[in-house]
Amino acid sequence: METFPITFLPDNQTIEAEAGETVQDVASRGKIHINASCGGEGVCGRCVVELRAGSVLASAGLYLSDEDFAKGIRLACRAKVSGPATLFIPLESRADASFFKKAAQAEEVLTVSNPDPMVGQTCLILDPPTPDDNRSDLDRVNSALAETGIYDADIDLSAMRSMPSVLRKSDFKVTVSIFRELALQKPETPDFSRIVAFETTMGDDNYYGLAVDVGTTSVWVRLINLATGEVKPSVGDLNGQISFGEDVISRIVYAGRKDGLKRLQTRVIDTINRLLERYEDAFPGYRKKTFLMTVSGNTTMAHLLVGLDPKNIRLSPYVPLASTWPSVRASFLGINVEPHTVMKIFPSVSSYVGGDIVAGVLASGLYKREELTLFIDVGTNGEIVIGNQDWMTCAACSAGPAFEGGGVRCGMRAAPGAIESFLYEPANKRHHLGVIGGVSPSGVCGSGLINIVAEFFRGGVLSKQGKFVEGSSPLIREGEDGLEYVLAPADLSAGGHDVVITEIDIENLIRAKGAMYSGYQTLLESVGLEMGDIEKVIIAGGFGRSLNIENAIAIGLLPYMPVDRFAYIGNSSLTGSTLAALSGTMWRQAFEIKEKMTNFELSDTPGYMDRYIASQFIPHTDASLFGQ
Amino acid sequence: METFPITFLPDNQTIEAEAGETVQDVASRGKIHINASCGGEGVCGRCVVELRAGSVLASAGLYLSDEDFAKGIRLACRAKVSGPATLFIPLESRADASFFKKAAQAEEVLTVSNPDPMVGQTCLILDPPTPDDNRSDLDRVNSALAETGIYDADIDLSAMRSMPSVLRKSDFKVTVSIFRELALQKPETPDFSRIVAFETTMGDDNYYGLAVDVGTTSVWVRLINLATGEVKPSVGDLNGQISFGEDVISRIVYAGRKDGLKRLQTRVIDTINRLLERYEDAFPGYRKKTFLMTVSGNTTMAHLLVGLDPKNIRLSPYVPLASTWPSVRASFLGINVEPHTVMKIFPSVSSYVGGDIVAGVLASGLYKREELTLFIDVGTNGEIVIGNQDWMTCAACSAGPAFEGGGVRCGMRAAPGAIESFLYEPANKRHHLGVIGGVSPSGVCGSGLINIVAEFFRGGVLSKQGKFVEGSSPLIREGEDGLEYVLAPADLSAGGHDVVITEIDIENLIRAKGAMYSGYQTLLESVGLEMGDIEKVIIAGGFGRSLNIENAIAIGLLPYMPVDRFAYIGNSSLTGSTLAALSGTMWRQAFEIKEKMTNFELSDTPGYMDRYIASQFIPHTDASLFGQ
Repeated sequence: METFPITFLPDNQTIEAEAGETVQDVASRGKIHINASCGGEGVCGRCVVELRAGSVLASAGLYLSDEDFAKGIRLACRAKVSGPATLFIPLESRADASFFKKAAQAEEVLTVSNPDPMVGQTCLILDPPTPDDNRSDLDRVNSALAETGIYDADIDLSAMRSMPSVLRKSDFKVTVSIFRELALQKPETPDFSRIVAFETTMGDDNYYGLAVDVGTTSVWVRLINLATGEVKPSVGDLNGQISFGEDVISRIVYAGRKDGLKRLQTRVIDTINRLLERYEDAFPGYRKKTFLMTVSGNTTMAHLLVGLDPKNIRLSPYVPLASTWPSVRASFLGINVEPHTVMKIFPSVSSYVGGDIVAGVLASGLYKREELTLFIDVGTNGEIVIGNQDWMTCAACSAGPAFEGGGVRCGMRAAPGAIESFLYEPANKRHHLGVIGGVSPSGVCGSGLINIVAEFFRGGVLSKQGKFVEGSSPLIREGEDGLEYVLAPADLSAGGHDVVITEIDIENLIRAKGAMYSGYQTLLESVGLEMGDIEKVIIAGGFGRSLNIENAIAIGLLPYMPVDRFAYIGNSSLTGSTLAALSGTMWRQAFEIKEKMTNFELSDTPGYMDRYIASQFIPHTDASLFGQ
Repeated sequence: METFPITFLPDNQTIEAEAGETVQDVASRGKIHINASCGGEGVCGRCVVELRAGSVLASAGLYLSDEDFAKGIRLACRAKVSGPATLFIPLESRADASFFKKAAQAEEVLTVSNPDPMVGQTCLILDPPTPDDNRSDLDRVNSALAETGIYDADIDLSAMRSMPSVLRKSDFKVTVSIFRELALQKPETPDFSRIVAFETTMGDDNYYGLAVDVGTTSVWVRLINLATGEVKPSVGDLNGQISFGEDVISRIVYAGRKDGLKRLQTRVIDTINRLLERYEDAFPGYRKKTFLMTVSGNTTMAHLLVGLDPKNIRLSPYVPLASTWPSVRASFLGINVEPHTVMKIFPSVSSYVGGDIVAGVLASGLYKREELTLFIDVGTNGEIVIGNQDWMTCAACSAGPAFEGGGVRCGMRAAPGAIESFLYEPANKRHHLGVIGGVSPSGVCGSGLINIVAEFFRGGVLSKQGKFVEGSSPLIREGEDGLEYVLAPADLSAGGHDVVITEIDIENLIRAKGAMYSGYQTLLESVGLEMGDIEKVIIAGGFGRSLNIENAIAIGLLPYMPVDRFAYIGNSSLTGSTLAALSGTMWRQAFEIKEKMTNFELSDTPGYMDRYIASQFIPHTDASLFGQ
């Protein structure tokens, strides 16, 4: 096998690599860290490297824009060795090395040891009809099913339609796909079975489920082989509703407009359809054998997906239309699958603690752990769960858009061009930027903002009150909105204007982190506990991926405790949805989680406001909470 | 109150009547018989009278054509006294007086004393949401339902859609319509509930079901108030499929053509939609409050209604696709009702003993009687059931089209212009005709053929072999197909050609009645019984309505026994369907009937062929069977 020298910068370390090896694997052999948040599936974009010389085999694919690709940006997990090459690993592709690790239990549960999906397949060997036994085809099938303990199975008309020819083509040996509608409210009620498809047993015995995470910002889909339990790489995209508003409130408002609800529904369905299309190449015809779709999303997303008006979610006392959803045929909603694909939507707890959090708690294993655990999904609507196997409470914090780069002068989404990593050297008053994609900086994303504020505070640039300390840095100047710090001057920025951070940006961030922190406090006090009782913190959601834990503690967003008590479990909503697709037992557990969780409306909870005001410092008015 | 003299011809009896009295009621007071098969609902057309002088208040309505109306034809049950009048009662409007009576139990069950329909309504008084109780609307509804013992209710998306506004409009006092999916196979399985609609409780508490009888020839629909148990007059029309073939076999063949299945389905759905339209005037908006549709039809009609290919029904060993049908939304099939209308289709026994017979047996009460009963539905496909509360056997006889006027030279359907009644006077070799609608004769319907052959045989015009006795009548002549008898010469007929009956017509009738008679015999012998063991004969179906029992015995179509052992129960398929709409208990019983019935394929049953050949006499080769 031919080998080629691959040189990694800035370490300037050269490793001999075989043709076809991924850059990620080559680096790994040389103990050079490159992030791989998605496990090398080519979808997280956290492993960007820059081709400085030579060539590697790669294409733009789903994560990289054509523009970035033209600049030499590659994903280390996708790029394959095809000759000598020199690659630069930017700061942001190394960033999570020391701070993040995936939660062990999340990885574990993703490989369900005994898949028991809600859709099962049964092979029936039937006696062909004779003059003495000319029962109907369906009677023949049903009496064979009764022998396996399945009584009173209902049947889809589409399954009936194909039944006679499948039976006769296969010489009356058929595979029947049966959907089990689980009885969840009253335990002694038996499950309800429904025949959704017939296949000749001559075919392979693979069949599929789809796990879907419908987020306000992004939609993720994952194909799962329900026969083997094998999980395929997920695919994701922006939720097409985003052009009608960035957060759930603006979507709810839009839904109230003429045709607004229909339009929002169509957009998200279109997004899902586009994602489903992406599997077609690798798994042609998979939709014919896809019988289940589990969907997790926040309460508003669930309403919009099924086309129901979420308006009362916005109005006190914040009553959603439903917190559980009937089985729906995905095709009925316009999703491009066969009529036999049953959609199950995760139950939610309240208007602002949705099915994504239920799925997340399911994925995290919090509900079966002894330790008191804090589960956090940080975002515009930050959700908090505190509890263990015995009890759970939850709440939603309206943190505002700062974590998403909103309300911040040069704020932007965590996309190429966003300043994400930041180091400040007090000794020489210089800073170092890490920009997503290794390109020129365009702005600052939420996690970047946290890192910058933490470094500024450490370096004496910012006061406890979140104000710039005058004379602390030559880059501080008077701007339109008061003092600001120049992160990148116009000539070094992508947009040709100064990238700055203002005192108002910092105020917004403090408000956001304070909303979260006072949320943990309020929830803990509601059950007679305090911060010191927390044994584990689980961070979920897209934002958490790039969160520097030490810096998040430093600014008072995360509680003060050793870094090793924190775990990041990625898109736990999608993981939970995957687990539910693989296992009816898990689906039942999602309902147990929903039932067990006590929801607090923070704004109605005594003391929340006081705690919120006390949190408006770096890291907090009460410095003792942060070991100071 | 003013009274007017109403004179009835041919009796020439005059009765003083009050303005507004129906002609039917006036005749009844005077003990003058006028048929009223439909119970005076204006739909059976059996009570036609002819206005000879004066006037009555009436309109053409649904049964009479404008043409007949112009000729003075009126329905006695609809025409109201408005002045002096002279009315002629034609023979056919008196025909069933002595021979028919409705079975008492059929009348009885039509007024179910304790309606327990599969769709029920529950009134819920809910606490409105507050900040301390901001459960979702659906959770609020479900927990109230759980208090009434309804757990794990599923819900329609359409019901969810209206729920929030109905709850708020009605101040959280709502009427919930809940469909119970009855578990039928395994008795200990509980029923499965599904919320299909919400209404404010301010409205009236009426809600509806529709009973539908889908016959090969005709479709009948009946609206039922499920809250009160009140049954509205039925409406009927020809099945629109009829232009694709008159009998089930030709429909099955047509279904195998390109788009044939879809076309057949569309036709019957169109027919149902037209019938539903007819209720709109009297019950505007009734569809909004219609939640159930029970449908009975033969096995082929059930397949075609739901759009499933019936092809194996025609091929040995005659295996239908299904004998039970899943719940379907009527609107899903294209029926013009709201999505909340659940369609339940009667189960069938075999390819040729369908849901119409199961419904008929349900309506007849046979399955809960002690006496050994013979249930007959005479037609192209004649169905026979023999049994009692302990056991039942059934079979279908392929009688051919003679009873429907097919295969008969001047044969026609039982419509205006058809010779139906017939008297032969051997002394003077003259005959008297009764024509449906009191118009000039166009042809002979099936029941007319039976009456003619019976009278001919009595009067010595026909031999036992079914041949004309030469010289017995001057109206016998040599025709194209051998000997024929002129019933009406061209100048007295409607079509301007001789209306005749030929020896071939008579052969066809003998074949048809022989198929039925040998069916009873074979079925009885299969269970070790004989004709004399039968204690009751129940005649069902449209054809039976005009059947002269004595004449049917005389030709050997019905078994020889006292006339009072016969009962005619009308359209028992529609009656059974009505009962099932009114009562879930009845619906369960339909499944018990299906399960209890043992089907015999006559062509495979030893001895059938011999008995069939022996039946090819008038009344039978073995005259002792007919007391001779």
